[in-house]
Amino acid sequence: MAIQFKARIYVTLRPSVLDPAGVAVQSGLHQLGYDSVEGVRIGKYIELQLSAENQTAAEAQLDQMCDRLLANPVIENYCFELDEVPALAVDR
Amino acid sequence: MAIQFKARIYVTLRPSVLDPAGVAVQSGLHQLGYDSVEGVRIGKYIELQLSAENQTAAEAQLDQMCDRLLANPVIENYCFELDEVPALAVDR
Repeated sequence: MAIQFKARIYVTLRPSVLDPAGVAVQSGLHQLGYDSVEGVRIGKYIELQLSAENQTAAEAQLDQMCDRLLANPVIENYCFELDEVPALAVDR
Repeated sequence: MAIQFKARIYVTLRPSVLDPAGVAVQSGLHQLGYDSVEGVRIGKYIELQLSAENQTAAEAQLDQMCDRLLANPVIENYCFELDEVPALAVDR
């Protein structure tokens, strides 16, 4: 029987890639008086549910999804956390 | 002396707010064959460094930054994690 998982995926720009949005936000924070802020980088945070036979299969599926659609492997890194959804909570 | 902190901020749409980007990504994943995927929600993941007197002061600053610039409190929720940067790593 398939198990329901909840995934939290973090997609970030590779450190070598310029982040204009991050620079703009950092400049905005400085203008608001938060002068100590530096190194602002903006990425994506994606939540989703999926079902799979087991944790390993779910991780393999998520890896594929990230490589094929959710992240651009040329300029972005990704990582994810996977939690099993308790059976009682499956019927949302 | 001010302590250096690294913050990871998660900005998500409130559950009651429609997420057209999430719907589009979910539809894309279904077209790629990942039929079990549901509940896709897309948020922002922001990394930054800041310095403050102590953890409490850093949290207060971050709360303000989120309310004033990083998140739109009308339609978004936010949360963050704060880690002290070891003294040796402060000089990047």
